[in-house]
Amino acid sequence: MEHYPTPVLKLIQSFSKLPGIGRKTAERLTLHLLHTKNNEACILSADILELKKKVKLCQCCFALSEENKCKICSDPSRDMTTICVVENPSDMNAIEKAHAFSGLYHVLGGALAPLDGIGPDELRIKELILRIKNNNIKEIIIATSTNVEGEATASYLAEKLKNVKITRIASGIPIGGDLKFVDQLTMQKAIKGRYGF
Amino acid sequence: MEHYPTPVLKLIQSFSKLPGIGRKTAERLTLHLLHTKNNEACILSADILELKKKVKLCQCCFALSEENKCKICSDPSRDMTTICVVENPSDMNAIEKAHAFSGLYHVLGGALAPLDGIGPDELRIKELILRIKNNNIKEIIIATSTNVEGEATASYLAEKLKNVKITRIASGIPIGGDLKFVDQLTMQKAIKGRYGF
Repeated sequence: MEHYPTPVLKLIQSFSKLPGIGRKTAERLTLHLLHTKNNEACILSADILELKKKVKLCQCCFALSEENKCKICSDPSRDMTTICVVENPSDMNAIEKAHAFSGLYHVLGGALAPLDGIGPDELRIKELILRIKNNNIKEIIIATSTNVEGEATASYLAEKLKNVKITRIASGIPIGGDLKFVDQLTMQKAIKGRYGF
Repeated sequence: MEHYPTPVLKLIQSFSKLPGIGRKTAERLTLHLLHTKNNEACILSADILELKKKVKLCQCCFALSEENKCKICSDPSRDMTTICVVENPSDMNAIEKAHAFSGLYHVLGGALAPLDGIGPDELRIKELILRIKNNNIKEIIIATSTNVEGEATASYLAEKLKNVKITRIASGIPIGGDLKFVDQLTMQKAIKGRYGF
């Protein structure tokens, strides 16, 4: 039994529901907020509400957006003939941050995981097929994760998508990486994917 | 540069200000809230506001409380002649959880840390002296931390407080602890504080 006033206990409980936040961390966060200026806590509270109210999914690529169409989909300077398929918005953000790609995206909303009940119908694959059909798409870059689920999703898509060039992002030694710390599978991929000068 | 809509970026920034929450964790929490039902996010938002609105400090012992006087201070079954002095509300909670003590508390609000600009005037020591003077207090148990700041605070209090029995919580081997993992200082304390059967 904890000996805190009810509002403290309630906030500890709410924080505990967040992923990666245990009981102790929730307690620390709550006590921290008690010590901050009113202003900071109010801003956090308001930001949470605003997030839920204003952010929706782009109708086209399912990225996070304030408008019906996200900034990337409505940017005429992007290459409209290439779509990079990612699992979720944070993967998309990682690619954008690297300035590695100037085409459009398609956010699947996860990866195939039959054990967790996530089959093709739970992902936005139908929508992707429709996009390819209705637009002049020349290449699909599959940038799902390189774990088991991501690879399975990539294979599934490669088989399912038609009338379009399909590529997969490369696997290999990370830049700045030390070869002796690289795992066997990555090393095999790196050798297999070698390129000529 | 992150490529998220503004409300997402704003909440990531607000979460990042919390202690122990880095940029990556803040991003994960924000994206998690986007996926939860509206209800859960609203509750979290409301709980934060309620915390700041309803929780204040007990006028007597400075514990967290919804009323002017906290539950412990207004509980007639507690021993009103003993005060346990702690650094902060979470220490008080730890003692209460252990059912180790049935007297009253006094929350100092920290420990002496001259390098951080925390001297005796920044702690609630004057208030403690006043409490001892105006009430029939027989014993003060000093339960500040056993780190440098806590020990310094304990020594300072032991010197400053008068006309009252002053004790310090014991240091020694934790129960269930393996002697070979105990540090030297704790071992010295354990030997020094040995008791007869």
